[in-house]
Amino acid sequence: MEMVTGSVVAPKGFLAGATYCGIKTVKDSFDIGIIFSEYPATGAALFTTNHICAAPVKLGRRIVQKGRVRAFVINSGNANACTGEQGYRDAEEMVRFTAQCLKVSEDEVLVASTGIIGRPLSMDKVVLGIKTAAASMGNTPAHGNAIARAIMTTDTKQKDIAVRLKINNTDVVLGGITKGAGMIAPDFATTLCFITTDASLPAPLLNECLRKSVESSFNRITIDGHTSTNDTLAIIANGASGVNISSYKENDNGLPLQIFQRGLDYVTGYLAKAIVKDGEGATKFIQIDVVGAQSRNDATRIARSIADSPLVKTAMNGEDPNWGRIVSAAGYAGVELDELKINLYINDILIFTKGMPAPYDLNTLSASMKNKDITVRLELGLGEYTDTVWTCDLSHEYVTINAEYHT
Amino acid sequence: MEMVTGSVVAPKGFLAGATYCGIKTVKDSFDIGIIFSEYPATGAALFTTNHICAAPVKLGRRIVQKGRVRAFVINSGNANACTGEQGYRDAEEMVRFTAQCLKVSEDEVLVASTGIIGRPLSMDKVVLGIKTAAASMGNTPAHGNAIARAIMTTDTKQKDIAVRLKINNTDVVLGGITKGAGMIAPDFATTLCFITTDASLPAPLLNECLRKSVESSFNRITIDGHTSTNDTLAIIANGASGVNISSYKENDNGLPLQIFQRGLDYVTGYLAKAIVKDGEGATKFIQIDVVGAQSRNDATRIARSIADSPLVKTAMNGEDPNWGRIVSAAGYAGVELDELKINLYINDILIFTKGMPAPYDLNTLSASMKNKDITVRLELGLGEYTDTVWTCDLSHEYVTINAEYHT
Repeated sequence: MEMVTGSVVAPKGFLAGATYCGIKTVKDSFDIGIIFSEYPATGAALFTTNHICAAPVKLGRRIVQKGRVRAFVINSGNANACTGEQGYRDAEEMVRFTAQCLKVSEDEVLVASTGIIGRPLSMDKVVLGIKTAAASMGNTPAHGNAIARAIMTTDTKQKDIAVRLKINNTDVVLGGITKGAGMIAPDFATTLCFITTDASLPAPLLNECLRKSVESSFNRITIDGHTSTNDTLAIIANGASGVNISSYKENDNGLPLQIFQRGLDYVTGYLAKAIVKDGEGATKFIQIDVVGAQSRNDATRIARSIADSPLVKTAMNGEDPNWGRIVSAAGYAGVELDELKINLYINDILIFTKGMPAPYDLNTLSASMKNKDITVRLELGLGEYTDTVWTCDLSHEYVTINAEYHT
Repeated sequence: MEMVTGSVVAPKGFLAGATYCGIKTVKDSFDIGIIFSEYPATGAALFTTNHICAAPVKLGRRIVQKGRVRAFVINSGNANACTGEQGYRDAEEMVRFTAQCLKVSEDEVLVASTGIIGRPLSMDKVVLGIKTAAASMGNTPAHGNAIARAIMTTDTKQKDIAVRLKINNTDVVLGGITKGAGMIAPDFATTLCFITTDASLPAPLLNECLRKSVESSFNRITIDGHTSTNDTLAIIANGASGVNISSYKENDNGLPLQIFQRGLDYVTGYLAKAIVKDGEGATKFIQIDVVGAQSRNDATRIARSIADSPLVKTAMNGEDPNWGRIVSAAGYAGVELDELKINLYINDILIFTKGMPAPYDLNTLSASMKNKDITVRLELGLGEYTDTVWTCDLSHEYVTINAEYHT
């Protein structure tokens, strides 16, 4: 696997275009963009599990069912959420107009929005933006950068990646962009992620690969446990590389699929971690490994309980190895524990064992807490199951960002 | 119902004593105390649900089963949690020595500890403290104040109450003290609460009354969703008023029990709210009412999801009526919702209805956000069930308190 430039336009047969159409108040930015496959393609997508969801999510769920996707149209600055029937009609209009500009079927365009909620879109601006973005499409690294920036809201960093794989001695490329910095102000529009590939996969298999990949990436991160109305993660596979990937049943022993899945996992993992690293006010990237659980679900509950504890997160911000908060957060996850079997390591230093603090060297431990990357490893000693969650600390800056925003 | 002074020594036949024995580093304070019934009495208690729990909790669970309690011995400054077998022996020693000083059975003494975890108690100091506290016992308001202060850790305010009821034309008094200010530094020792009454109730009925009362009080508050290793809430009923309270089956139509329950609910409700008001860094007291749910459990999950959202709490801190964060926090509570049926009120002003923002007056709403008390009312329009949760905002001060503490 090799890193390449170009983000979503790195794979063959993809174009992207982005422009500023006046949705965001900051003029020196992009706020609308299109990602387009020059060839017919399959597609798959996952959406927020929040019961309150935005118009483009409702529409996208319907469109993606057919498994044919050739384009994404995305705006930032306005989430088109809590906008009633008009909002749904506006999402439909975005799809219709994009399809018209790109000369594809309306059934092949997914729309996503992110930004402030409860405000109608200015559709005159949006339509002009789509037209301009479509007219400016290209496949240079600059186009890849522009579309990555067009989906940002309060992100401080652009988040993109592209990788080249060898499958059956042929190059296959995967590209991806994402956005998100916690449950960002304005409001709670968090994650969008768009992935492109020039491999070809039947839609059900592509869907399966995407879901598997999300399990090990986007479902493993938490900034503040607050899911959004707009989360959308989607992929287009256009086959322009000439490589067709089928399921394990073929006589290739499923190797191409394994290589593709590994590449996809790398892309989603990289992008998911990039979100945590850019978390609102974050100064630390924290990996929480729970091992020795009686079930995967137990491990997940405990890892999330620790990751979402404001007391653990503030301790990390203060660079304090507060094992008591970690152990007690595990204790209220609703999972049976035996405190005498627990071992807790921070940055590979054993600090709690047999129900009591271990005789660690406080100076070594304290020094390691100054690292930007912190690992917490909790061994339960009860079984074989594990989970890992990535999170960040809770800082004054987080409070500033989220308390100073005004509706 | 009438408010009276004296906290836990307001009921007849109760004494309390407190002293400083050197567990806390602040000398101008109390750190150990005893509450004692001069007469044999029944008792009941509830303990933390955290799977990691302190030695006094483990011991207390065993002792309270017999339903006979005459004394509480409590220290602050050290939680005696994660202290291994020695910790359990120390808790037993506290009970044994207190029983000896008070000339009661060891089976009638409950012990509770709060403060830093993972450090052994200095038993020489504790023993001397118990001796001094026992020798200084009395039933004046000063004694009531001293014991209320002796259980505080990072609380900024003493939390106590006493009420006088009339049952069958006879005075019955209930007194109570509590502590807690969130998952307070040092570490995670949150709530202790001790209640006394001069009514007489059989232990099983007393237990039932206490559990019922906790449902509407301590189980309705959250500061940061992090439960502790040491939570203990206990009551002693000594019958010194001469009033015997039995269950509904008696020919008094259960009226005395109803009056007693109402008094107890008032005491626990007052103390639970006092904790939220003294929440770490709190500037707002927030009541969240969820109505129209299909089950009580649904209402509870939604209310807690809103109350524990850092985004809702920071918005409240910023005095911003951020309805989007509230609605989306409801949306990820795992409960089926129909956004078109939802009405959301902040401080009685309708701000979200039929899936969209309501036409509220922003100036009136913004002005009301400056109140110290904020009410959030979410109508789901799905059923008849309701729940209420009390919480506080998330401020810079919370981060300061919890990030600056060092293990």
